[in-house]
Amino acid sequence: MQSSEIYLESLITATPQEGRDLAIKLSRKSIAAIQTNPDVRKKLRADYAEDTAQLIASAQVIALEFQTIARANNYWKP
Amino acid sequence: MQSSEIYLESLITATPQEGRDLAIKLSRKSIAAIQTNPDVRKKLRADYAEDTAQLIASAQVIALEFQTIARANNYWKP
Amino acid sequence: MQSSEIYLESLITATPQEGRDLAIKLSRKSIAAIQTNPDVRKKLRADYAEDTAQLIASAQVIALEFQTIARANNYWKP
Amino acid sequence: MQSSEIYLESLITATPQEGRDLAIKLSRKSIAAIQTNPDVRKKLRADYAEDTAQLIASAQVIALEFQTIARANNYWKP
Amino acid sequence: MQSSEIYLESLITATPQEGRDLAIKLSRKSIAAIQTNPDVRKKLRADYAEDTAQLIASAQVIALEFQTIARANNYWKP
Amino acid sequence: MQSSEIYLESLITATPQEGRDLAIKLSRKSIAAIQTNPDVRKKLRADYAEDTAQLIASAQVIALEFQTIARANNYWKP
Repeated sequence: MQSSEIYLESLITATPQEGRDLAIKLSRKSIAAIQTNPDVRKKLRADYAEDTAQLIASAQVIALEFQTIARANNYWKP
Repeated sequence: MQSSEIYLESLITATPQEGRDLAIKLSRKSIAAIQTNPDVRKKLRADYAEDTAQLIASAQVIALEFQTIARANNYWKP
Repeated sequence: MQSSEIYLESLITATPQEGRDLAIKLSRKSIAAIQTNPDVRKKLRADYAEDTAQLIASAQVIALEFQTIARANNYWKP
Repeated sequence: MQSSEIYLESLITATPQEGRDLAIKLSRKSIAAIQTNPDVRKKLRADYAEDTAQLIASAQVIALEFQTIARANNYWKP
Repeated sequence: MQSSEIYLESLITATPQEGRDLAIKLSRKSIAAIQTNPDVRKKLRADYAEDTAQLIASAQVIALEFQTIARANNYWKP
Repeated sequence: MQSSEIYLESLITATPQEGRDLAIKLSRKSIAAIQTNPDVRKKLRADYAEDTAQLIASAQVIALEFQTIARANNYWKP
């Protein structure tokens, strides 16, 4: 399953905040890799945007992706 | 999805307790990144604040974020 | 969300058993950080204390927190 | 359970994007290792492709596999 | 919550198999730390012993605990 | 709970593919350590083999076990 779209050039970000943003982006791209139809994804948003259990589960994905990104950036230590 | 708000300047905290607080903050910011409407988030609190399964799942997110923060701070070893 | 209570002074414990106890304590403090009302938490105990799915999910949180604590203590190697 | 098919020759990839693709592939191969019938898997797709809770859980698997791959590739640092 | 029982003296085991056994033991001790009544725990066994979702979730706990133990033992490398 | 059966002699495998197979084997052995009756396990297969949520949860266990194995093998780097 070769993704046609190149959405990840590097794990290195300038700041921790950009690392968070990248973690959120990677989480979303995983969903898009499984459900490739953007219209379906848009329709599905209502299913989780107000479902706290799914919002919490999404936060787990972001925390896991951020672990990887933070480590790649040596925790943005000076 | 570039977050307009800069909520994470650094992973470095003075104490382990501040590391816990940051982990809780990052967990919440992940939810806010997905459900951006603060009024909706406020309304949703009742859905999880007394749901032990969701409280436990939230504790998993905090544990994962804290893993990253603790590591960034070299476990606050002197 | 600055926690008023300082419950984590250090991740360093004298023994692995104390590390387990600390992991259990941190897991509980995460729940308390989200559901701050002790009376509500007490009432909610019945919801998970005999629910094996939630007991297992709680064990996951303890395992994650223990990973962090064990690492902070270099696995209590002599 | 020796897999007849060799689908993983190496964890090393040329780019982070290929690392993501490999993480997605490994996640799928795990499902195939448990449910070995491709026709059943095809039929089951409808059960999760529009179920946001399962899409999010799948994103957790990808995040875990990507952690391993990113580390194997030293985060594709030059 | 100081556990009265000392069930973890060391993370070091002679073999990987003993590491697995210790991971399973720690997973169970976590459940016992939350549901302290052995009779209740015995009664609850029927709730998960034939529930595959809970058996899988238990395997996740064992995998997390084993990660910690394996690392403590430097993967039992000679 | 000392397992009578020695199923894990070493975490070291010759190839990444063997590492995947070992991760799948360890995941299954965890289930068997909790539900020790092989006939019951056989009967239960129908409960998860076509349940995508449980197939995904199983893939999470495999991903966690593979993390440990990959690290033990230094990611099979030459």
